[in-house]
Amino acid sequence: MLHPDRLFSSDPTQRAIARRLYAEVQNLPIVSPHGHTDPSWFALNEAFPDPAALFVKPDHYAFRMLYSQGVPMESLGVPRRDGGAVETDSRKIWRLLAEHWHLFPGTPTRMWLEHAFETAFGVTERLSPATADGIYDRIEACLRTPEFRPRALFERFNIEVLATTESPLDPLDHHKAIRESGWKGRVITAFRPDPVVDPEFEGFQANVATLGVLTGEDTTSWKGYLAALENRRRYFKEVGGATSTDHGHPTAVTADLSTAEAEALFAKALRGTVTAAEAELFRGQMLTEMARMSLEDGLVMQIHPGSVRNHNAPVFERFGRDKGCDIPSATEYVRALKPLLDRFGNERDLTIILFTLDETSYSRELAPLAGHYPALRLGPAWWFHDSPEGMRRFREMTTETAGFYNTVGFNDDTRAFCSIPARHDVARRIDCAFLARLVAEHRVDEDEAVEVATDLAYRLAKNAYKL
Amino acid sequence: MLHPDRLFSSDPTQRAIARRLYAEVQNLPIVSPHGHTDPSWFALNEAFPDPAALFVKPDHYAFRMLYSQGVPMESLGVPRRDGGAVETDSRKIWRLLAEHWHLFPGTPTRMWLEHAFETAFGVTERLSPATADGIYDRIEACLRTPEFRPRALFERFNIEVLATTESPLDPLDHHKAIRESGWKGRVITAFRPDPVVDPEFEGFQANVATLGVLTGEDTTSWKGYLAALENRRRYFKEVGGATSTDHGHPTAVTADLSTAEAEALFAKALRGTVTAAEAELFRGQMLTEMARMSLEDGLVMQIHPGSVRNHNAPVFERFGRDKGCDIPSATEYVRALKPLLDRFGNERDLTIILFTLDETSYSRELAPLAGHYPALRLGPAWWFHDSPEGMRRFREMTTETAGFYNTVGFNDDTRAFCSIPARHDVARRIDCAFLARLVAEHRVDEDEAVEVATDLAYRLAKNAYKL
Amino acid sequence: MLHPDRLFSSDPTQRAIARRLYAEVQNLPIVSPHGHTDPSWFALNEAFPDPAALFVKPDHYAFRMLYSQGVPMESLGVPRRDGGAVETDSRKIWRLLAEHWHLFPGTPTRMWLEHAFETAFGVTERLSPATADGIYDRIEACLRTPEFRPRALFERFNIEVLATTESPLDPLDHHKAIRESGWKGRVITAFRPDPVVDPEFEGFQANVATLGVLTGEDTTSWKGYLAALENRRRYFKEVGGATSTDHGHPTAVTADLSTAEAEALFAKALRGTVTAAEAELFRGQMLTEMARMSLEDGLVMQIHPGSVRNHNAPVFERFGRDKGCDIPSATEYVRALKPLLDRFGNERDLTIILFTLDETSYSRELAPLAGHYPALRLGPAWWFHDSPEGMRRFREMTTETAGFYNTVGFNDDTRAFCSIPARHDVARRIDCAFLARLVAEHRVDEDEAVEVATDLAYRLAKNAYKL
Repeated sequence: MLHPDRLFSSDPTQRAIARRLYAEVQNLPIVSPHGHTDPSWFALNEAFPDPAALFVKPDHYAFRMLYSQGVPMESLGVPRRDGGAVETDSRKIWRLLAEHWHLFPGTPTRMWLEHAFETAFGVTERLSPATADGIYDRIEACLRTPEFRPRALFERFNIEVLATTESPLDPLDHHKAIRESGWKGRVITAFRPDPVVDPEFEGFQANVATLGVLTGEDTTSWKGYLAALENRRRYFKEVGGATSTDHGHPTAVTADLSTAEAEALFAKALRGTVTAAEAELFRGQMLTEMARMSLEDGLVMQIHPGSVRNHNAPVFERFGRDKGCDIPSATEYVRALKPLLDRFGNERDLTIILFTLDETSYSRELAPLAGHYPALRLGPAWWFHDSPEGMRRFREMTTETAGFYNTVGFNDDTRAFCSIPARHDVARRIDCAFLARLVAEHRVDEDEAVEVATDLAYRLAKNAYKL
Repeated sequence: MLHPDRLFSSDPTQRAIARRLYAEVQNLPIVSPHGHTDPSWFALNEAFPDPAALFVKPDHYAFRMLYSQGVPMESLGVPRRDGGAVETDSRKIWRLLAEHWHLFPGTPTRMWLEHAFETAFGVTERLSPATADGIYDRIEACLRTPEFRPRALFERFNIEVLATTESPLDPLDHHKAIRESGWKGRVITAFRPDPVVDPEFEGFQANVATLGVLTGEDTTSWKGYLAALENRRRYFKEVGGATSTDHGHPTAVTADLSTAEAEALFAKALRGTVTAAEAELFRGQMLTEMARMSLEDGLVMQIHPGSVRNHNAPVFERFGRDKGCDIPSATEYVRALKPLLDRFGNERDLTIILFTLDETSYSRELAPLAGHYPALRLGPAWWFHDSPEGMRRFREMTTETAGFYNTVGFNDDTRAFCSIPARHDVARRIDCAFLARLVAEHRVDEDEAVEVATDLAYRLAKNAYKL
Repeated sequence: MLHPDRLFSSDPTQRAIARRLYAEVQNLPIVSPHGHTDPSWFALNEAFPDPAALFVKPDHYAFRMLYSQGVPMESLGVPRRDGGAVETDSRKIWRLLAEHWHLFPGTPTRMWLEHAFETAFGVTERLSPATADGIYDRIEACLRTPEFRPRALFERFNIEVLATTESPLDPLDHHKAIRESGWKGRVITAFRPDPVVDPEFEGFQANVATLGVLTGEDTTSWKGYLAALENRRRYFKEVGGATSTDHGHPTAVTADLSTAEAEALFAKALRGTVTAAEAELFRGQMLTEMARMSLEDGLVMQIHPGSVRNHNAPVFERFGRDKGCDIPSATEYVRALKPLLDRFGNERDLTIILFTLDETSYSRELAPLAGHYPALRLGPAWWFHDSPEGMRRFREMTTETAGFYNTVGFNDDTRAFCSIPARHDVARRIDCAFLARLVAEHRVDEDEAVEVATDLAYRLAKNAYKL
């Protein structure tokens, strides 16, 4: 199924160059500096239960496509919040996927799944109702062997380092267990403080109180609250090996309030009486506070703004978060980031990595900003845009203004462990294909392209995330 | 003039694949589920008067280009509202087109016209001042023969079904006449209620009153008004064969008001005292009402938002609507559609087809929405974007997130009858070229591409519009 | 370094066509109707001091990239506002550029610089720490010879006409000196009234007073102010050879106020008491006034909206304007331009050239507007988008709706004199490559493409700017 030249231009000149570039980067170790895999996999190292549990139930890319065409999520085994009945027969779920396989041509989901099927499990037939059972059996048999336990796969995937993402309230027990186990795989955490810095997050007040308990700080005062966050960041660095923080706000708004204003706003947030605009302002202030802390403790800062979370109210009510119902919206950066940038944008020892779901911002806002401010870098094409066409547009719309070196290589950002090698492979191929076009059009020399390809595949992520 | 490989990539690998795909779809019947042709053509079956009347006067694509370069609309025979003098010599108008033919390279207008000239009328020379008269004579001679009457062309164009678009106040006499004539061509209507659901539409109050008369319902009450609309939808289904409705609002805003709120707003609209914001809210409420009715009566719903109509005030005053003066504007869907989607987005028996004039919404909003909600589908590239580059961007920016099967094939959306085969041919070629690239880059297998090409050219429109 | 086929597609069919088209336009004279070169160069004709002064210090494209990667502007010799110490050793500055040369692959800056190095100075090695000194020496030696004086370069560059841009308060002494010198090079000015029409411009009130002194009009009254502007436009035409005006507003907003309203607003602006919204309204009114004056005196009007100037507050404070800190922002045209267009949009004797930094407006707003209004034309891809990919997107997103003939050829818009031939060459190559694709895909005939290429490279700019 996997052609060795996939994703390269069919033009022979470009293809030949792309092949040579790809040969240089194909086998480099995977650096995965941002994602959402489950650290318990590597702590416990238990077998994955079955093909549907591995590939369908947890993958909102897969089940949102089936849902869009009328397949109920219950029949795909997606758990209901109220514990109501859902399909438990994994083979039936797998067959449903196979019956709807014709929906996926041209999507990255198709490419990631086939890559995993073939390279990890040796499947070489296309999924279909006729082949569904055979493929299911093969994958299931593999999963029962030690070679398919999480740590073995981690090693086979040639992962040099893998970052997960945790709430400040997480005790990081799995990360501790991994370190104490003596296993050499490097799995680190990232500090994602949304639950304690966003007044609109479920349980914000309780979360802030818990943060106080965990850190021994008085989080009812602004000063104590900041100290608690600093404390917890330290804990994430020391215990979880964190080198970065991550911030998933609805917008990119930042603020730079006086201490008195910030104190008053925080008090209001704790009382639960902030308006939507005040909640936005508070989140914005916290981004600036986080930048200040990053300058002090060296954690790299990631901002992932612009997702309208849980857009589908009935589905959210029945199934909860992360069910394929988050929808991007237009996101402004130039005015939004100004307060933070006026204060910290010129710092050479600070790294803020910006992501977007709004591709219009690439050439209009993000590349011009990152091509100027020393503190800014551009994260790779994200989420819906983490795809061949999306990655190509990212390079076409950012390179001329920001160059390659204000970007940070690739993040897979995935919850689906087996998709990691596929996603990195797609990124490497698309970057090689893009560079091959530049070489073929005599815009970049091939020796330079080799350097750039290697940096994009490996070094840039390692450097930008201090790994 | 028409090269057999036009619109295919010049890369030999891609071109060979595109040819094979196109051979499979080239001769499929035309399904035209949405457009603005005149049903009287097929009811009366009279000869088209002359080349200028067929190709210039009614085609705002053609005359807006000439107007932009200083050619007065009067000299192109575009009728004035006040009945003032305009050019009546069709040959002179034709010569004006020929003199300005150099303005059109690279435009779809050029491609559509040359396709019609050559395939329908056997013209093989390029239009120019030197050839203008000869071509005029040839087309005029054709138009005098029975083979060029509307019904004969309809059959020659291999049209399986053609939908027109009518106001609820239209008696559908032409559609009745077509059915009663015994002619086998299938021409159906679509229900476009803007004149009776938009408080800012010219004559809204009178239109609503007329709707009451036509349906025997009391349209001075909210309840009666809704009943009248339901009644009229039934009439459009039964008498005009309608399978769809169509909604051309300035934005995509929807609302889900309580009955009391809706009643009060309707009363205000009838009194003519709504503000612009209230008019917007009322239109938004009516989209949600229409979705409810569609769920009940099965009519497929089309939403065409985002055109700033009649932007050129002096031209509107002198020549009226649809004179090439409608200009797209930025259009938001994610928040705008939420009220409707929260209520009906998860319905599997409802189909809402979304269109846009704002290409930035393809990858950011529309593909993510249609790739999740069972009720949503994406209409094809529309109006200014119904062109080779526009169609290519549509596929590049929607396929990875929504797949091919959350789109609905092609609509020609035209007022220009003779452009129908050309427009469908362009769409088929561009889809084949896009698929050929995916095949050549080993992203889709060729057997799958054949299936998809056939679905895009024929089956998807037929299924989505229940034809 | 410069491959003869650079920027052409690597597809052999397209490349062959592109070569043929380019051969027709390669040696056409350069028409540079809009830019920011310094007229004193041509008036005084002094030698450029050294390579860093020519290529680094004044080029914000070059130093913003180095700054973004942590190189202080002081070390690049960028002068400080307070006169504080900055690097003065040009060779050191040059070496810094060479050390960071790996940041530039894929950027237009790299392409422009290498074009100038090779074609003007005969440099054929890639810049690097190893080659830095040799290249420095070579360029410096050239600059000491008469063949590298500004006028000699102007002639060698085959420039037919070059426009600079001046404030209404400029006495145009350098332009006078050029004319009186007997030198045959045509260097003209353009009228850029921002300092006297933007109430938020530094020193607005004083500027308006000075305008009164320069023109002998009473600029404390609205009537006198307008008369002074008309007077000064005449001066720019007569003394500086101006054929155009230029307007760099934050947005594209226009207004059409009554005389009484305009008078009151002007009075408020002179008192310095306008709000931000009133300042915007006043600028908008002045665009409409300028259009009226253009209709009377024939000056072509350019609008360059949408740049957030001096975004980096600390850098602005230390280094001042034009230091690579201007960032584009989303720009709306459809509603913004309506007041002006309702009044003057249908004038065939008026030319308004629109530019944008927001590429989303190309297909959505600008091409539909320019494809209809007789007074409107589209300027070429601007600033961050004046690059191979940017120019390609411009053609792909405007041609189908506006055609080629509602665009105006190329502007280099540069402050960097030696980049002029490079920039025009890139534009010619990209246009030829775009046309070659259309020819290879049988969308345009090659004889037509030759005509269009020649118009884009030469005739359109000359005609649109009345040169």
